[in-house]
Amino acid sequence: MIVLSGGSGKRLWPLSNDVRSKQFIQIFRKEDGSYESMAQRVCRQIRQADADASITIATSRTQVSAIHNQLGEKNVDISVEPCRRDTFPAIALAAAFLVDVKGISRREAVVVCPVDPYVEDDYFRTLKEMKALAEEGDANLVLMGIDPTYPSEKYGYILPESAGRTAAVSVFREKPDAGTAAEYIRRGALWNGGVFAFRLGYVLEKAHALIDFSDYHDLYAKYEDLPSISFDHAVAEKESKLQVVHFSGSWKDLGTWNTLTEAMEETSIGDAVMNETCRNVHVINELNVPLLAMGLHDVVISASPEGILVSDKEQSSYIQPFVDRLDQRVMFAEKSWGSFRVMDVEEESLTIKVTLKAGHRMNYHSHRNRDEVWVVTAGTGRTIVDGMEQQVRPGDVITMQAGCRHTIIAESELKLVEVQLGREISVHDKQKYELEYE
Amino acid sequence: MIVLSGGSGKRLWPLSNDVRSKQFIQIFRKEDGSYESMAQRVCRQIRQADADASITIATSRTQVSAIHNQLGEKNVDISVEPCRRDTFPAIALAAAFLVDVKGISRREAVVVCPVDPYVEDDYFRTLKEMKALAEEGDANLVLMGIDPTYPSEKYGYILPESAGRTAAVSVFREKPDAGTAAEYIRRGALWNGGVFAFRLGYVLEKAHALIDFSDYHDLYAKYEDLPSISFDHAVAEKESKLQVVHFSGSWKDLGTWNTLTEAMEETSIGDAVMNETCRNVHVINELNVPLLAMGLHDVVISASPEGILVSDKEQSSYIQPFVDRLDQRVMFAEKSWGSFRVMDVEEESLTIKVTLKAGHRMNYHSHRNRDEVWVVTAGTGRTIVDGMEQQVRPGDVITMQAGCRHTIIAESELKLVEVQLGREISVHDKQKYELEYE
Repeated sequence: MIVLSGGSGKRLWPLSNDVRSKQFIQIFRKEDGSYESMAQRVCRQIRQADADASITIATSRTQVSAIHNQLGEKNVDISVEPCRRDTFPAIALAAAFLVDVKGISRREAVVVCPVDPYVEDDYFRTLKEMKALAEEGDANLVLMGIDPTYPSEKYGYILPESAGRTAAVSVFREKPDAGTAAEYIRRGALWNGGVFAFRLGYVLEKAHALIDFSDYHDLYAKYEDLPSISFDHAVAEKESKLQVVHFSGSWKDLGTWNTLTEAMEETSIGDAVMNETCRNVHVINELNVPLLAMGLHDVVISASPEGILVSDKEQSSYIQPFVDRLDQRVMFAEKSWGSFRVMDVEEESLTIKVTLKAGHRMNYHSHRNRDEVWVVTAGTGRTIVDGMEQQVRPGDVITMQAGCRHTIIAESELKLVEVQLGREISVHDKQKYELEYE
Repeated sequence: MIVLSGGSGKRLWPLSNDVRSKQFIQIFRKEDGSYESMAQRVCRQIRQADADASITIATSRTQVSAIHNQLGEKNVDISVEPCRRDTFPAIALAAAFLVDVKGISRREAVVVCPVDPYVEDDYFRTLKEMKALAEEGDANLVLMGIDPTYPSEKYGYILPESAGRTAAVSVFREKPDAGTAAEYIRRGALWNGGVFAFRLGYVLEKAHALIDFSDYHDLYAKYEDLPSISFDHAVAEKESKLQVVHFSGSWKDLGTWNTLTEAMEETSIGDAVMNETCRNVHVINELNVPLLAMGLHDVVISASPEGILVSDKEQSSYIQPFVDRLDQRVMFAEKSWGSFRVMDVEEESLTIKVTLKAGHRMNYHSHRNRDEVWVVTAGTGRTIVDGMEQQVRPGDVITMQAGCRHTIIAESELKLVEVQLGREISVHDKQKYELEYE
């Protein structure tokens, strides 16, 4: 199973931003009362449908930390795209990764699905059927068809040759104009659900036909030079041997606050109080202060260390241009080793809180233009400062002059306050080093 | 002029709370683009009407820091009430303060007014007239009469003996029932504006009649035993020689978000963006992250380190019981020496940011149950730790074990990050000491 984990949308600001994509927002309540993200939910559902499913996530470097953080380092493989190049190069790279790195046979069938559909278990049973069809080999490519609701110009249209759950495809057409779309719908067409099943060898052949490369490593090296082209245009639209499996279950695209809040089980997450005159109000409060909502109708409120959104639900679809204009520092980020939060910004100082997971560490690094002070507030671990190792516990203070190499290794979960001091504080001022004894 | 600065209302939460009363919220735009609070506005207006006016603010101990901070330490006198005992004890104590501490003659007339009416300059001209009438002495007590708008049961009613701007009073009646109020209005009564003018000696006589005390210091010592009684009930309602001055200018009670935002000159203060579909929306954002409002009507949004309010404007009048239920730590406070803000709360640590004004210092103090670390982030000054003095500048780190006596003195404006560490962190864990060389 290849899961496509896409870009850094801002339509769910302030919870999504340049470093946290919407699929990592933990907003869906699980049975045990905790919350999971879209990425966690989809991977859990894949495993529930097939306990032995092996999952490869195709994504960019910026998401690797979040994936390790939320899904664990050993539960999924990651095919890292060196840069963004639409779905065809991403799928080709993931296929080459599976064959050349993971040693999977080219005859093996895989299913490619997006990370962000909000669906139920029947969806994943359909994926298994698609994979089985791809293995049978009557078609080169198996698509998922979804019942269309209106003649949208944003979807691909699949015209089956016959009625029934599974059928050969007579026409596949990406994003036609509204008139053509209406005509397709009249003739019984389905929307393309963005899910594909095929044998790995099939996609590698297509890739070799379009791109000159030898193996995974060569493709990876050439990735930046590849054109941006969708799998639909590059492969699906040109293929004559297509099959479709009709999926008529629940399927939601939770890309806006309006649709996302519809999928929330409660009206609020975090510290929030609503009075009895609120109607159809959803609050997601990631700040550690209370939020009080009174007398509101059809409103979504979302507060995070990045900012605060208060929006009429319908209006929330139009958020993107406003967020683009907010020129802001990343105030919170989850990393594979833990997380950080900016607590205070002054002209010549920056104070952040760092949480390191047990067993994790920072890179061994130095800064040219700033001094730093650590105050350990919780947990135990070891610091290495210019090669000198030291045990640390709450209350310990470590001061580091500019140029001094440093890291901290968490034994238990470790929290610290880091004060950065200097005239030119920048995230780019960081030199990394190998630790010699490693 | 005695200005009564009342209690710690929560109706303007999250900007007002137990330590910041609504009269100290800086929300009114001045000509130079900066903002002033109700307390600053009223004192500025008093001085504009009478450059020589001497102002005494009658208030509780908890407000002394905020008053010094906003009005300066030398511009106003403060009559500190040891505890809250309604307006009659407060006015009597302030009168005794003026006579016994400030040495003002008992024959001198003063005006008492509340700190929070939102009024224009004509109001203060009326106060001067009232003072002049009190000095003439035709009446013992001069009241301000305001045009009533409906038979409210919350106001006092003043029935003048004759028409005209100034008149003797035939009846003064506190808070009658609605029927009686309507009858008074029919007969030409005015609302009591809560402003009184009298000779100091008059109020001291009334005080001696009700309370057994010798002078200011004795009254101060006995203050806690005094009954809570309003000046209207204790004095005005019983007085037969009353005059009224009719004030017909603009007069607003900005006690709720609804009325307060009406007096704002702009629709937002702080980092806020509203899209074009917002109508009658006001935003006050004291946080250092952006706030985006979309598609809202008749809504007030207020965000501070204490919390976030999003409310329909009319509904905002009903905020009190909800705020009472929020059991929360004070996250931000202005003090006479500067301010502090809580940045992070953990089970066994608390991180705050402290800003000291130039020339100011903390008390010399120690804590039984916590260690502390200071990291200076801006400015210069001196620390004294267990009697040892040391110059400090940005980047300096001071560690203090529990029990260790410490203070910091700001030479220029000084900022520091304070990390508190311990199992029982409490604001009550503080022992103060005199500095020996002082």
